[in-house]
Amino acid sequence: MSELKNDRFLRALNREAVDATPIWVMRQAGRYLPEYRETRARAGSFMDLCRNAELACEVTLQPLERFDLDAAILFSDILTIPDAMGLGLEFTAGEGPTFKTPVRTAADVAALPKLDVNVDLDYVMNAVRTIRSALGGRVPLIGFSGSPWTLATYMIEGAGSKEYPHAKGMLYGDPDTMHALMNHLADTVADYLNAQILAGAQAVQIFDTWGGALPFAQYAEFSLASMQRVVDKLIREHEGRKVPVILFTKGGGAWLESMADTGCDALGLDWTCNLGNARERVGHKVALQGNLDPGTLFGSDESVAREAKRALDAFGPNSGHVFNLGHGISQFANADRVKTLVDTVHEYSAQLHAKA
Amino acid sequence: MSELKNDRFLRALNREAVDATPIWVMRQAGRYLPEYRETRARAGSFMDLCRNAELACEVTLQPLERFDLDAAILFSDILTIPDAMGLGLEFTAGEGPTFKTPVRTAADVAALPKLDVNVDLDYVMNAVRTIRSALGGRVPLIGFSGSPWTLATYMIEGAGSKEYPHAKGMLYGDPDTMHALMNHLADTVADYLNAQILAGAQAVQIFDTWGGALPFAQYAEFSLASMQRVVDKLIREHEGRKVPVILFTKGGGAWLESMADTGCDALGLDWTCNLGNARERVGHKVALQGNLDPGTLFGSDESVAREAKRALDAFGPNSGHVFNLGHGISQFANADRVKTLVDTVHEYSAQLHAKA
Repeated sequence: MSELKNDRFLRALNREAVDATPIWVMRQAGRYLPEYRETRARAGSFMDLCRNAELACEVTLQPLERFDLDAAILFSDILTIPDAMGLGLEFTAGEGPTFKTPVRTAADVAALPKLDVNVDLDYVMNAVRTIRSALGGRVPLIGFSGSPWTLATYMIEGAGSKEYPHAKGMLYGDPDTMHALMNHLADTVADYLNAQILAGAQAVQIFDTWGGALPFAQYAEFSLASMQRVVDKLIREHEGRKVPVILFTKGGGAWLESMADTGCDALGLDWTCNLGNARERVGHKVALQGNLDPGTLFGSDESVAREAKRALDAFGPNSGHVFNLGHGISQFANADRVKTLVDTVHEYSAQLHAKA
Repeated sequence: MSELKNDRFLRALNREAVDATPIWVMRQAGRYLPEYRETRARAGSFMDLCRNAELACEVTLQPLERFDLDAAILFSDILTIPDAMGLGLEFTAGEGPTFKTPVRTAADVAALPKLDVNVDLDYVMNAVRTIRSALGGRVPLIGFSGSPWTLATYMIEGAGSKEYPHAKGMLYGDPDTMHALMNHLADTVADYLNAQILAGAQAVQIFDTWGGALPFAQYAEFSLASMQRVVDKLIREHEGRKVPVILFTKGGGAWLESMADTGCDALGLDWTCNLGNARERVGHKVALQGNLDPGTLFGSDESVAREAKRALDAFGPNSGHVFNLGHGISQFANADRVKTLVDTVHEYSAQLHAKA
């Protein structure tokens, strides 16, 4: 493997000093880029693109050509695991992901197969190897998975949901079945992330997109406990270097202390948290990643620069910050604003770090 | 006006002692009730139902016949104000509310009419008077409005939105225009709520459904500041009794102290906050309303009772709690679970208050 030329991202996750604050953008390889839309059209369906290692690599590298980003993230979907379990993933226009065979009962949960991730999800590991090789040490590669609870919401509802009638029905009405599902998914997610690490991922992020839809007691008992089970099983060092683990619960700003107690390396923050306040609360226990409002990119270059500086000032001239949006970038975002964001973060933070 | 027979709700909002914790349910007159669906079908469109004082009264009273609720809430829509401003409100199946003429520019904002709420929204005041009379003092009647920011998101996007490309584009990129819109809407909302109070509403709630989509700095500058402007203009006493004001920012759990500083009487909480922790933070400054996960109603009677008791225990045997869900009840909720909820809250809290 080539030597890593830019390790700001990994250094910041380990709370080590950096010359400038690293930045990457959730969903940075996405529909807001015309070159992504072009490759996507060539690939066929969205899952065809995920399954084609060369094209997945191509779209992964596209944002790095445009912007001075400090990390690449595997191009894939969060629903690869339930798809490999045979639930019949489909993407329908306007409706988002759906599953033909939702999981609703204790018998459905017991019937879920145990995956061999290197076989059943070999296309993901192929993509990781291909991207890592193509990066040539330019920046680190991030692997990822959906959290057990987030996967479960789609598996149980059979589609995206606002109210989770079936998933919350199981969680409140049949908690034993929900625990069985959480445990099975946690073990699978741990296998999946470990396989990504062995294939070349240099950090991993767990996307708990829907953890914030729960009250704290249920979040702790189901979503956080299952992420704890994942973290406990992860490979934490590989190729002679630490492999940091980032937990991101959207809407989890009130629960940062509990999330930090899992032993993860960093927490992703959405834009409703204040970065300075969050840093005071978690101290040096974990690094923080975030947290610009993705909506900032709908403003002007001036307002993007102003809000980026405001976030950097809130965190202060300390180590342990990875800049990012507080959620995935919108398909309607303007790519020129992203360039302003990335350059502002590097230039302004370099001054902060030089003074510190 | 008839004497009020059950004033638990108003007493709790004023942090006075009660025999049992009062409860009402956001969207309690709604699609989960078959009798509501029947009246709705008779009325024609949703807005036809809102505009018909007799039918609006009928659906307002329906949940009181089924459940031992401690308050009624005016049946209306949060988008009556922009509709009266001539934006062309339409409800399309599957898409929710849309406006034919969205407000996008400084000129669009300047061209918005100043409403005479007693003329332009006379059907709302007729409904308030009709319902108040039909209640005959059984329980108090709550009036309401959307918050200026929440109204603005629909007016600017022209529809519901997840990412608010146009509304956040204006907020970040053209803050002067957004301030002008917030001020115009705040003045209109104040007029609207005052007219409801004079027509017979005994408490009012401001629904800031989308305030939680903002970072704190933008929430404070736009949504909260405009709600402050409303609170400052409201009639606070009428018919010899205080008229409490409830602010509800969904997703605003981190900002309760700032919300309490507006001088409102109570804060609505969503289910991601802990009631006990919230009470410690705001002290006796305001009452609290909430905050059961609406998803609890998808569970069993046992789990509904357990979670209701957990919320009551979290608040403790103090005055100043109005029980509610943390958001509107789902159309898929089971009405039998609602009965369990209401009865559990009254029975269990009566024991707590008797011991206190």
